[in-house]
Amino acid sequence: MKCQGTLYGVGLGPGDADLMTVRAHRLLAGATHVAFFRKAGRPGQARRIVEGLLPCAAVELAMEYPVTTEIAVEDPAYNEALSGFYAACVAQLRSLSDAGHDVVILCEGDPFFYGSFMHLYTRLAATHPVQVVPAITGMSGAWTATGRPITWGDDVLTVLMGTLPEATLARHMAQSDALVIMKIGRNIDKVRRALAAAGRLQEAWLVEFATMPGQKVVRLVEAEGRVTPYFSIVLVHGNGRRP
Amino acid sequence: MKCQGTLYGVGLGPGDADLMTVRAHRLLAGATHVAFFRKAGRPGQARRIVEGLLPCAAVELAMEYPVTTEIAVEDPAYNEALSGFYAACVAQLRSLSDAGHDVVILCEGDPFFYGSFMHLYTRLAATHPVQVVPAITGMSGAWTATGRPITWGDDVLTVLMGTLPEATLARHMAQSDALVIMKIGRNIDKVRRALAAAGRLQEAWLVEFATMPGQKVVRLVEAEGRVTPYFSIVLVHGNGRRP
Repeated sequence: MKCQGTLYGVGLGPGDADLMTVRAHRLLAGATHVAFFRKAGRPGQARRIVEGLLPCAAVELAMEYPVTTEIAVEDPAYNEALSGFYAACVAQLRSLSDAGHDVVILCEGDPFFYGSFMHLYTRLAATHPVQVVPAITGMSGAWTATGRPITWGDDVLTVLMGTLPEATLARHMAQSDALVIMKIGRNIDKVRRALAAAGRLQEAWLVEFATMPGQKVVRLVEAEGRVTPYFSIVLVHGNGRRP
Repeated sequence: MKCQGTLYGVGLGPGDADLMTVRAHRLLAGATHVAFFRKAGRPGQARRIVEGLLPCAAVELAMEYPVTTEIAVEDPAYNEALSGFYAACVAQLRSLSDAGHDVVILCEGDPFFYGSFMHLYTRLAATHPVQVVPAITGMSGAWTATGRPITWGDDVLTVLMGTLPEATLARHMAQSDALVIMKIGRNIDKVRRALAAAGRLQEAWLVEFATMPGQKVVRLVEAEGRVTPYFSIVLVHGNGRRP
């Protein structure tokens, strides 16, 4: 009987291939099977990051989301579509592992930090060998891009999703020293209003495409009316103790 | 006139050299001058991580803290001692840069996330070329070590320092889905009491030496009476939306 192959959830970091870990690079260079999420009809950001790093002979498995923003997250149909999708992905990964193949699963950012990989992980970890390779988070790429430290001394840092209700955002924003707000895109006006309500708007920065070509760092107040990607990040730096 | 050398603030990540970035590895392998913080009389954790990765001919500059826990942080003498220390480090780094030398400054974790390097950076960046290489944070190494994702969907994540007052800790702990508490050490009992007050103690994990030899992951309630290092991390995982 063949041994099960290992399923590697490999974090790719914020986008610059030079900021991947040595372990990720080695796993990519030796990969025989590579799986990655993408929006249907798109090349996929994870796959783009590893361009030129995979062996030519590697078998590629594109896992295409059945839905991204066409159905509201609150709609039960959204959960249903995604559950079915994850189940299908997991079935494919299981059969590759059962046939003895190792599979490298590409993960943007850090796999255990707001990632899609976790939905595969929880379905696979009990029955198949899974290894997770952490990576630099997108937010770390973003605060490095601003050229200013995000937290000092005893600063409290709160990470918020722009998808949260405005009042929830404002309440947390008022109570934290440093802030990271992710999933911006069409939530940008709500995020701006919440920051203003919390008295933090003037300190906020918008970072687009951190560490990638097209990186842009602007003060949020100077980005009025701007159309920004979903994966943009808004930051407010802490100001803690500094000898 | 010679060009100024570049001062590289190089993040080393959580401790496993295999989890450094490709860029960090390349800078270390080509380093002519390497600077790092350490406690007087100790080899230093940052220097230990890069053991075997530096050229034999690299000139090493150990920057030894004049004080770590001997003086309370609240004592004005603490700030004074550290200010003088950073000024002296900066003077050395400036003269190396002015002589045309590049210097790799080793940073545990991610340089802009609660790091000592920031105190050098703010004093150097206006007059000398400084480049910052981000890295995997210690907390990311810690949540990966638990084998469970830290955040899902719209979870709110709050990062707290164990040095904060107990009531402040408890207030934030009660309002966040996921928690990271750093700087544990002798603060562990205070952190435990604050978690209990916020009703989160049963969910908490203690991670010591994440990604390093000696890594230990235990439920915090099972670590009663445990002496744990300052760089241990306490985690509470989020439980957000999961299709």
